[in-house]
Amino acid sequence: GSELLKEERNASNVNVDQLATFLHTKDGRERKKRILKVLESEKAFDKSQNYFAGRIDRFETALKRAKRLRQLYVEQNWGTEERQVANELISEPLPYGLHESMFLITIRDQGSAEQHQKFLKPAENYEYIGCYAQTELGHGSNVRGLETTATWNPDDKTFTLHSPSLTASKWWIGSLGRMANHAVVMAQLVIAGKRYGPHPFVVHIRDMKTHQPLEGVHIGDIGPKFGYNTMDNGFLLFNNVKIPHIGMLSRFSSVDPKTNQYIRPSSPSLVYGTLTWVRSTIVMQAGGVLARGVTIATRYCAVRRQFQDRDAPEWEKGENQVLNYTMVQIRLLPLLAATFALHFTGKGMMQLYEANNRKIRQSKEASKDHARGAGPEETESSSDLLSDLHAISCGLKSLASSTAAEGLEVCRRACGGHGYSSFSGIGSYYADYLPTATWEGDNYMLTQQVARYLLKSARSVLKGNEPTNDTTAILSYFLSRQDQGAAFDILGDDADVVSAFAWRSAFLTFEALKHRDEQKRSWNSLLVDFYQLSKAHSQYMVVKSFYETLQASSTSSELDPDTQGLMHKLFRLYALHTLESEASEFYTSAAVTVRQIQLARSSAVMKLLEEIRPHAVRLVDSWDFPDWQLDSSLGRQDGKVYEDMFYRASELNPLNRVTVDPYPNSETLFRKDGSGELKSKL
Amino acid sequence: GSELLKEERNASNVNVDQLATFLHTKDGRERKKRILKVLESEKAFDKSQNYFAGRIDRFETALKRAKRLRQLYVEQNWGTEERQVANELISEPLPYGLHESMFLITIRDQGSAEQHQKFLKPAENYEYIGCYAQTELGHGSNVRGLETTATWNPDDKTFTLHSPSLTASKWWIGSLGRMANHAVVMAQLVIAGKRYGPHPFVVHIRDMKTHQPLEGVHIGDIGPKFGYNTMDNGFLLFNNVKIPHIGMLSRFSSVDPKTNQYIRPSSPSLVYGTLTWVRSTIVMQAGGVLARGVTIATRYCAVRRQFQDRDAPEWEKGENQVLNYTMVQIRLLPLLAATFALHFTGKGMMQLYEANNRKIRQSKEASKDHARGAGPEETESSSDLLSDLHAISCGLKSLASSTAAEGLEVCRRACGGHGYSSFSGIGSYYADYLPTATWEGDNYMLTQQVARYLLKSARSVLKGNEPTNDTTAILSYFLSRQDQGAAFDILGDDADVVSAFAWRSAFLTFEALKHRDEQKRSWNSLLVDFYQLSKAHSQYMVVKSFYETLQASSTSSELDPDTQGLMHKLFRLYALHTLESEASEFYTSAAVTVRQIQLARSSAVMKLLEEIRPHAVRLVDSWDFPDWQLDSSLGRQDGKVYEDMFYRASELNPLNRVTVDPYPNSETLFRKDGSGELKSKL
Ligand SMILES: Cc1cc2nc3c(=O)[nH]c(=O)nc-3n(C[C@H](O)[C@H](O)[C@H](O)COP(=O)(O)OP(=O)(O)OC[C@H]3O[C@@H](n4cnc5c(N)ncnc54)[C@H](O)[C@@H]3O)c2cc1C
Ligand SMILES: Cc1cc2nc3c(=O)[nH]c(=O)nc-3n(C[C@H](O)[C@H](O)[C@H](O)COP(=O)(O)OP(=O)(O)OC[C@H]3O[C@@H](n4cnc5c(N)ncnc54)[C@H](O)[C@@H]3O)c2cc1C
Repeated sequence: GSELLKEERNASNVNVDQLATFLHTKDGRERKKRILKVLESEKAFDKSQNYFAGRIDRFETALKRAKRLRQLYVEQNWGTEERQVANELISEPLPYGLHESMFLITIRDQGSAEQHQKFLKPAENYEYIGCYAQTELGHGSNVRGLETTATWNPDDKTFTLHSPSLTASKWWIGSLGRMANHAVVMAQLVIAGKRYGPHPFVVHIRDMKTHQPLEGVHIGDIGPKFGYNTMDNGFLLFNNVKIPHIGMLSRFSSVDPKTNQYIRPSSPSLVYGTLTWVRSTIVMQAGGVLARGVTIATRYCAVRRQFQDRDAPEWEKGENQVLNYTMVQIRLLPLLAATFALHFTGKGMMQLYEANNRKIRQSKEASKDHARGAGPEETESSSDLLSDLHAISCGLKSLASSTAAEGLEVCRRACGGHGYSSFSGIGSYYADYLPTATWEGDNYMLTQQVARYLLKSARSVLKGNEPTNDTTAILSYFLSRQDQGAAFDILGDDADVVSAFAWRSAFLTFEALKHRDEQKRSWNSLLVDFYQLSKAHSQYMVVKSFYETLQASSTSSELDPDTQGLMHKLFRLYALHTLESEASEFYTSAAVTVRQIQLARSSAVMKLLEEIRPHAVRLVDSWDFPDWQLDSSLGRQDGKVYEDMFYRASELNPLNRVTVDPYPNSETLFRKDGSGELKSKL
Repeated sequence: GSELLKEERNASNVNVDQLATFLHTKDGRERKKRILKVLESEKAFDKSQNYFAGRIDRFETALKRAKRLRQLYVEQNWGTEERQVANELISEPLPYGLHESMFLITIRDQGSAEQHQKFLKPAENYEYIGCYAQTELGHGSNVRGLETTATWNPDDKTFTLHSPSLTASKWWIGSLGRMANHAVVMAQLVIAGKRYGPHPFVVHIRDMKTHQPLEGVHIGDIGPKFGYNTMDNGFLLFNNVKIPHIGMLSRFSSVDPKTNQYIRPSSPSLVYGTLTWVRSTIVMQAGGVLARGVTIATRYCAVRRQFQDRDAPEWEKGENQVLNYTMVQIRLLPLLAATFALHFTGKGMMQLYEANNRKIRQSKEASKDHARGAGPEETESSSDLLSDLHAISCGLKSLASSTAAEGLEVCRRACGGHGYSSFSGIGSYYADYLPTATWEGDNYMLTQQVARYLLKSARSVLKGNEPTNDTTAILSYFLSRQDQGAAFDILGDDADVVSAFAWRSAFLTFEALKHRDEQKRSWNSLLVDFYQLSKAHSQYMVVKSFYETLQASSTSSELDPDTQGLMHKLFRLYALHTLESEASEFYTSAAVTVRQIQLARSSAVMKLLEEIRPHAVRLVDSWDFPDWQLDSSLGRQDGKVYEDMFYRASELNPLNRVTVDPYPNSETLFRKDGSGELKSKL
């Protein structure tokens, strides 16, 4: 193994250090190194039994880690960025997870100053341990259908929380099952018999001393899951539980305790902004998630040898590295390209989002300073950009997390039999990642939002309005050129590749619009078209972001020309491989010809695979994952695949301390069970 | 839940009983009922803790079950069919698995009469517990690359088994890790310094009394896996272990102890036949595997309600069943169609295989009787059919197991958040099924065999040979019509749909041939084309089998006209949905026009979804899975989804017997751990 990876690295001139810095920045890389050193030296984070332990043990270990990690935050004075890196390195969901993300953020964003004082302080000190309880057994994506009620009692100025049915039980709530003593609960606000929709309430649920559920509160862990088993996702039922007036988070809407009147929300768009931000981070992380699988599979496929090449000359005796087979390359290398594509796209989204936020803040401040409203164009453009960003983030979240989840399984399978071993390190990571396709908006349903936005944009363009953002710009362009048709040189010109993706997206948008507005087809009958449309538009965004990153001056200053050239090849591989997989839409839209598509695969893509192949190992090296993070026999940096598999199987595996009685007529199952020994040795 | 499923069943006129009998036969259904009754009443098979237990406990329970099942085989006098049904109902890999399949079969098929006496007898009595040790740490698919040697010692007429390196360690061997006391070992036969390739040896590996490994034998379990954790896949290293001459299974080849000469294999085609048979069973089972997921998801999506339809009239207040959303239908209903398609295809293959075997046997007997060889046409046609069957079984195994594995994940995801719970019953089943894509021929590599066969057939047709089977027939037809082109009425005529699939397969075959024979492209550079070609041909086979099943007279006599009509719709849905997903190959080959494809999706497929939707629940009912087998909250026959989720989470979940200390600065993790109580209660 070692020599093969050494040879691979010798045969490529990619400057790994430079590319790694380009991807992660110098600060980011140093931070990671620093934190890794701390974690590696802590006994609590020893990973050696991770793949062997059952759920209870894993949860116990995770709790130990969560506690130690929190202590480290304090001891080492780690801020948000450090904390995130530490969690990525540890690579398993920890029981404080939802406390640290959703509980704190929701109180911070939606609580009043008084509520910050009362709830946020003890929460930041981990005296209150919280969770975010929105989903119910019967309702998830349809938040408006939630059944839990919070009824205002004008007499004693309290709310009564109640679960009127079994399906009203909160369900899936992370950190609730065993951990939390408080919860943010989304419940239907009811005042004087009238419903005002779901609102957030902070509810005390377990005793601070005994940690037993309070009266009227029924809580538990929801049981084992496909992955995420180090987290105690829980259920929660209320039997008429009273909470004080201050429990309703009141920054945006509230109940006036004097008049008993509902006070309407002022600016819901802030929440909408947070969602956009969260989705952008999912897009960027999807690149890294996929890169783990690609790193493991690429290294292993460079070490794994199987068969001689059928056309190899007689004297070439050695077996072929399986990474040399084109059928392995076509599975892994486009995914390698996708890791970069998603990373750049997510990063771009986050920058846009921040820039836009700054703009909004500035215009707000300006309006304060000058004691007058911002000029109409200013507000217009930033809010147009925001709704563009919002829609795009929905589509990209869906595309990116599906690509990463499905790509991980492709990587696992590319490793043949050994991919199925837990020691491959892909399986458990895949299992933990999967819910990303379902939460923060189910990947299928999100596409409806993208379609809605594109239809709206198309209507505006059809009315003759001037383009205000990229989306309306490509739609206008399409309209103007519709009758001449397109002639994109997808094989010769990178900018034309981007244009072909734009063209297809615009074509599908106007097709969908025709169905909806002219043919008056029902919304439901168009969901499949909307899904395709969202995918098409999101792929356009990814291709465009990748292209723009390569055009940016920072790129040419940070990367040497050879590496830039290679990144261009990865761009083309991503784009042309996608184009080929979606071929039929490309020619139905007349963006390309049949001949172009044929050439795209049979010559362009195959040639790119050949050109990128020698650099594959160095390219994954530049993702810069420490072995400790990957925890994978197959993905080891040094290629000692077989030694590590053997070591783990024979030295760390508790089942080997069991002697069975194998004969069917004997009642004895285990003659000797020493499987506990390994655990107690830790 | 209950009422919704009742309504579903009321709204469809599918005769579930009739269709179930058509799929599984009357005998098969009665057998299943009988066996289910036995298993359900046995404490050993109680499934209630399956989803909660860790690996050691699961393995222990599985061992208990394996033993009890073996006792039942004897007590109840269960034959092969009964045993298979019992295993399907239990639905988890059991530790005797490889003993019962590969170990016994290999000795039976490849052993001499003397060896049957010595090895098979005690193996059938479960005194010898065996496994099949072929794969090594360093070699799996490339069997010729195995490193373990079996060296003939002329002096004492023994073989020495040896593992010359770490990578020579046997690996992945089912039932070896803890269970087996014997192994069939594939090792390189060496006589007088010369290698004769891999051959099978029966080796005694653990002491019959102490169950400890014998001297020079190093064995262990290879550790946890993505699934299959109730099986003890193991490793095995030999340090110069001697076995007697009788250890080499000698039906087909052997070493003459007197002359020390190698005796060449007589008829390797028998083994080749077994492989074909095994692959055909995988195809047929793939239908059933997928049907489990589709059953669970369809029932759940009929119970799950979320949102109101956007276009629903004001007065329609209730939420929509998610199965009504076309975006859910397009994910589930084509898979529902695929369950039938794969079932019929596998069944057809197995019948062909058996018919062909009968023919061979007859001609052999005839040749014995008449003391002369069979007429040349007879042997020709049956061996031609056999090689056709063999190639087709490779392609279909690949297509079918990929479809089933990937389809299960689609089903899981269609269930939204609850699909991620272990109680969905899809996740663990998916995890256990996945290796089917890798073993019995890796799904990607198998496609090379299909391509090789198609190229050979095409060369024969080009030479002007008369077609001898369906493959050469469609290739000839394509050649003869190539210059006129095709005009298939895919939307109006079912037979034309089949022809369009045949046309595309033939087109791709001749394209590949051009690349290989005219352009002299390397084998490796064509692997991706071969993969597509194999997929195309296999899809043709599936579409053809489905069509032929519907044309068969037995079908029209066993199914009422309405159900037949519905099956026709499922056929069209499977075919047109596949056609649309592979659209670009269909028009590159000029089998269809762009317009036809557009219509296929936007009108034909969408219309079929609408027509099949009302019958979805009854259609999955006819797959006839008992609740006990599915072990799924979401897939319950009675629709009591939420009640069952809640029951399992709150009553059966051991984590809820743990009280944690949640505060980061406390060293205590669990204040109280009663999680063992549930286990001991069993
Ligand atoms: C591991 C995990 C952790 C979680 N943690 C939390 C947490 O901490 N707090 C919390 O509040 N929640 C949490 N959740 C819940 C999560 O947010 C929901 O599961 C998610 O929003 C999906 O909702 P659902 O399960 O109701 O799906 P459903 O809406 O029931 O979806 C079922 C199916 O119907 C389809 N569908 C539904 N509506 C439509 C429509 N209108 N059009 C087309 N198709 C439709 C979906 O695509 C899907 O295929 C968690 C979930 C998981 C899996
Ligand atoms: C759960 C499980 C149980 C098993 N049980 C047993 C058992 O009881 N006994 C036993 O002997 N074995 C067993 N096996 C082993 C199994 O048969 C092998 O894992 C399987 O044959 C695949 O071989 P491999 O792992 O060497 O894959 P590899 O050949 O190493 O494949 C690695 C990758 O290279 C690709 N590749 C390899 N060669 C080529 C080529 N020529 N052209 C193109 N691509 C190529 C493959 O597609 C794959 O992506 C088991 C495996 C599993 C997972």
